[in-house]
Amino acid sequence: MREDARDAANRVNEQRLWQRHSEMAQIGAIPGNGVNRAALSKEDIVARKLLLSWAAKRNYAISADGIGNLFLRRAGTDPNAEPVMTGSHMDTQPRGGRFDGIYGVLAGFEALEAMDEAGVTTRRPVEVVAWTNEEGGRFAPCTMGSIVFTGARPLNDVLEVTDNEGIRLKDALAETLAATPQVKPREFKSPAAGYIEAHIEQGPLLENAKKTIGVVTGIQGLRWFNIEVFGKTDHAGTTPLALRKDAVRDAIAIINALTELTRDAQDVTRFTVGRMLVTPNSPNSVASHVLFSVDIRHPDLKTVTRLGDAVEALARKAAQFCEVKVTPTLHDNPCAFDAQVAGAIENAATKLELPHMRLASGASHDAMYMARVCPTAMIFVPCEKGISHNEAENAAPADLAAGARVLTAALIELANR
Amino acid sequence: MREDARDAANRVNEQRLWQRHSEMAQIGAIPGNGVNRAALSKEDIVARKLLLSWAAKRNYAISADGIGNLFLRRAGTDPNAEPVMTGSHMDTQPRGGRFDGIYGVLAGFEALEAMDEAGVTTRRPVEVVAWTNEEGGRFAPCTMGSIVFTGARPLNDVLEVTDNEGIRLKDALAETLAATPQVKPREFKSPAAGYIEAHIEQGPLLENAKKTIGVVTGIQGLRWFNIEVFGKTDHAGTTPLALRKDAVRDAIAIINALTELTRDAQDVTRFTVGRMLVTPNSPNSVASHVLFSVDIRHPDLKTVTRLGDAVEALARKAAQFCEVKVTPTLHDNPCAFDAQVAGAIENAATKLELPHMRLASGASHDAMYMARVCPTAMIFVPCEKGISHNEAENAAPADLAAGARVLTAALIELANR
Repeated sequence: MREDARDAANRVNEQRLWQRHSEMAQIGAIPGNGVNRAALSKEDIVARKLLLSWAAKRNYAISADGIGNLFLRRAGTDPNAEPVMTGSHMDTQPRGGRFDGIYGVLAGFEALEAMDEAGVTTRRPVEVVAWTNEEGGRFAPCTMGSIVFTGARPLNDVLEVTDNEGIRLKDALAETLAATPQVKPREFKSPAAGYIEAHIEQGPLLENAKKTIGVVTGIQGLRWFNIEVFGKTDHAGTTPLALRKDAVRDAIAIINALTELTRDAQDVTRFTVGRMLVTPNSPNSVASHVLFSVDIRHPDLKTVTRLGDAVEALARKAAQFCEVKVTPTLHDNPCAFDAQVAGAIENAATKLELPHMRLASGASHDAMYMARVCPTAMIFVPCEKGISHNEAENAAPADLAAGARVLTAALIELANR
Repeated sequence: MREDARDAANRVNEQRLWQRHSEMAQIGAIPGNGVNRAALSKEDIVARKLLLSWAAKRNYAISADGIGNLFLRRAGTDPNAEPVMTGSHMDTQPRGGRFDGIYGVLAGFEALEAMDEAGVTTRRPVEVVAWTNEEGGRFAPCTMGSIVFTGARPLNDVLEVTDNEGIRLKDALAETLAATPQVKPREFKSPAAGYIEAHIEQGPLLENAKKTIGVVTGIQGLRWFNIEVFGKTDHAGTTPLALRKDAVRDAIAIINALTELTRDAQDVTRFTVGRMLVTPNSPNSVASHVLFSVDIRHPDLKTVTRLGDAVEALARKAAQFCEVKVTPTLHDNPCAFDAQVAGAIENAATKLELPHMRLASGASHDAMYMARVCPTAMIFVPCEKGISHNEAENAAPADLAAGARVLTAALIELANR
C-alpha cells in the first residue's frame, strides 16, 4: 500500500463521520430513529444544502447535471485527467433508515477531507457524487440518477413520471435545482476513470461472518413491472360476482400466479409486491382499477430472465374478468464488477488489517449503471441484523469509519493510476 | 285511492324533477357524467345549500341534527301529529352517478311541491330528510346518518373516524354545519309515523322484468370489516422471503381464504374487497402494514351470520407471518319492511296504473335503520343495465317521475292515517 494512502486512511475521523450521519438523520426524521427523505422533496433540498455547505468550507468545486445528480470535486494535479468517482444517494425509502445511501456520500466526503488533512495530492481529481432518486419510492424507476447520467435512458423518459400525489418529476426537479443556484451545470455521461460506492450491506452476511468489510463483486439481476388491472366500478351489494369486472379480484389472481412462478425452495429468488393503488378505494364499490408493482430478483442471469419474461403472459392469463396492462419499469441483468477495482478494495482492507470477504449485492445500486461506463466496485459495511428499508436500520460507528478508511485508500490508489 | 292523493300525484312535474337532478349533478361532476360528492365535503355543502334554497322558496321549516342529517318539513293540520318521513342521501361514491341517493331526496321534495300545487293538506306533517354519509366512501361506516339518528350507535362512536387523508369526521361535520347557520338544531330519534325511501334499484331486476315500480319488501344482510395486517418493512432485494413479515403477502392469503369461504355456485353471496391501503407503498420495500375492507352480504340470516362470524378466525389462520387485527365496522341482519307501508306503495302503483313488482334490495339503505323505529318501506325505479356506483349510472326521466308519483300518493295516504 502507498504510504500516502495509509496516511490519509488514518486521518478518517470516526467521530466526525458519525456526527454528519446524525445531522443528516435530522432531515426528514420519523419516529423510531427512521428517516423519510423522498427524492426531490423539501427534505432532499435541505440535505443537499447541508452537504454543499460542508463542501464550500473545503473549496471543492460543485456541479449538478440535468437530473440533479450533485458532484463535489477535489482537484488533482493533472488538469486533463478523468476523475475517480465515489458516492451514493441521499434519498430514502418512505420509512427508511439513517445509513442507506447517505453513508456512501458521507464516507466519500470523509475520504476527501482525510486526503486534505493528510496533505495528499492525487494525479486525478476525486469526485463525490450524490445520485438523485436511487430509491424510486416516490418516482419510478429507482437508480434514476445513474441511469440518466450514464445514458442508459434519456432524461426525457422520466420527466413526466408522477408520484402518488400526481406531482411530476419535472416540476419537483426544477424546484430542487432552483434551490441551489450556486451549483454549476454539468453534462451527462462526463467521463470517469473509475467508481467506488460504499454502502451498508442491507443483508445479514457480513454480520453473520463477523467481517467488517465486504468486497462487492457484483449485483443480482432485477426485473420491475407496474401491472395495471382495468375493471368496472359497480355496487358491492347488488352486482352478482359473475357479472363483475372487479380489479382487486383479478389483481389478486395475478399476484397468486406470480407467487407460484417465483416459488423457490432455496429462497434465493426475491419476489415483492410493495405498492398497490386501488381506485376508487371505497369499501362499497367494486374496484375499477388497481396498479401494483412487481419486483423480481435473482443472481443468475438465466433464472431472472426466465422469471421476468414470464410475467406479462402469466398476468394476462390469470386475469379472468379485466383488461391487464404490464409495463416493465426496470430491467437489470446481473452485473459483475471490475476485478481491478475490487482488487484495490480488497488490498486496502488487507493492508489496513480489516476482516473482509467477497460477496454479491442483493440490492441494486447506482454502481450497477456506473459499471457500464467505467471500472466499478463497491464496499459494504455490516448493518445490524441485516435490517434496511426500515426505521430500525442500524450500523456501528467503527464499521462506518473502517469502510471510509478502505474507501480512502482505494480511491488514492485509483486516482494515481 | 284518495282523490287528493291522485290530484297531487298528477302534479308531479317530470321536467322540474329532471332539471333538479341535472343541477345537483353539476356539484362534484366528474368526467363521463359521474359525480364525486363525498359526505361532508365542500361539494356536499354546496348541494345542501342548493336544497335549502329551494326549501326557502316554499317556506318549509328546516332543521338538522348533530350528525348533519337535514330535514325539510311541510306542515300538517294536526300540530301534535308525528310526521311521515321520506328522503335518502346526497353524498356519492368517489366515482358515483347522478341518481343514487339524490333521487330519493329530490323525489321527496317533488312530492312536497306537488302537494302544494294540488292544494292538498295532510293531518301529519311530511318531512324530507337528506341523510349524512350514506355511502361510507369517505368515512366508515356507511348509512351513518340514519345509524346515529335512530340511536343504533351513539354520535361519539363516529366523531373520531378519519378519511384517507386523516381528516376527522368531527372536523368535516363542524365545517358543514357552520356553512348552513340558518338550519335549526334538532334532536336525534325524533318520532316518526312512517318512512318511505325512493331509490334507483342499482340492480337489473326491474329492467329485465319491464317494470317501472319496485315495491321493496326488505334488505339483505351485511357484514363489514376492516382487516389490518401488521408486518415489517424490509429491503425487497436482500431479505429472504422466509425471514419477511410481508403485510401484502399475508393480506392476499387472507383474501384468498375469504374468497373460498364466500364461494357460492348460486352467485347470491356478495363478497367485495373495495379498499386497500398499503404502507409504505413503495415497490422497493416489503410492506409493513395493509388495511383492507371486507363486505359480505346475503339475504338469508343464517348464511350471512355464518359467513360474518367466520371472518376473524379465518383471517388469523391465513396470515402466516404477520399480526392481524379484525375490526367489524358494520353488522346489519337482513331486514323485512312494514307490510302496511309496502301495501300503501303497491296500492298507489296499482291505482296509478304503473307496472310494478315486489323485490328485496341488494344494497343497504338508510331505510334499514328507519325500519327499526317506525313503519318503513322503499320504492325502487329502474336504472339502466342495473349499473350503479359508476359514472355510467343512468335512469329515465319518466321512470323517476313515476316513482315520485307513487311516493306522493303513498305519503298522503300515510299522512292521513
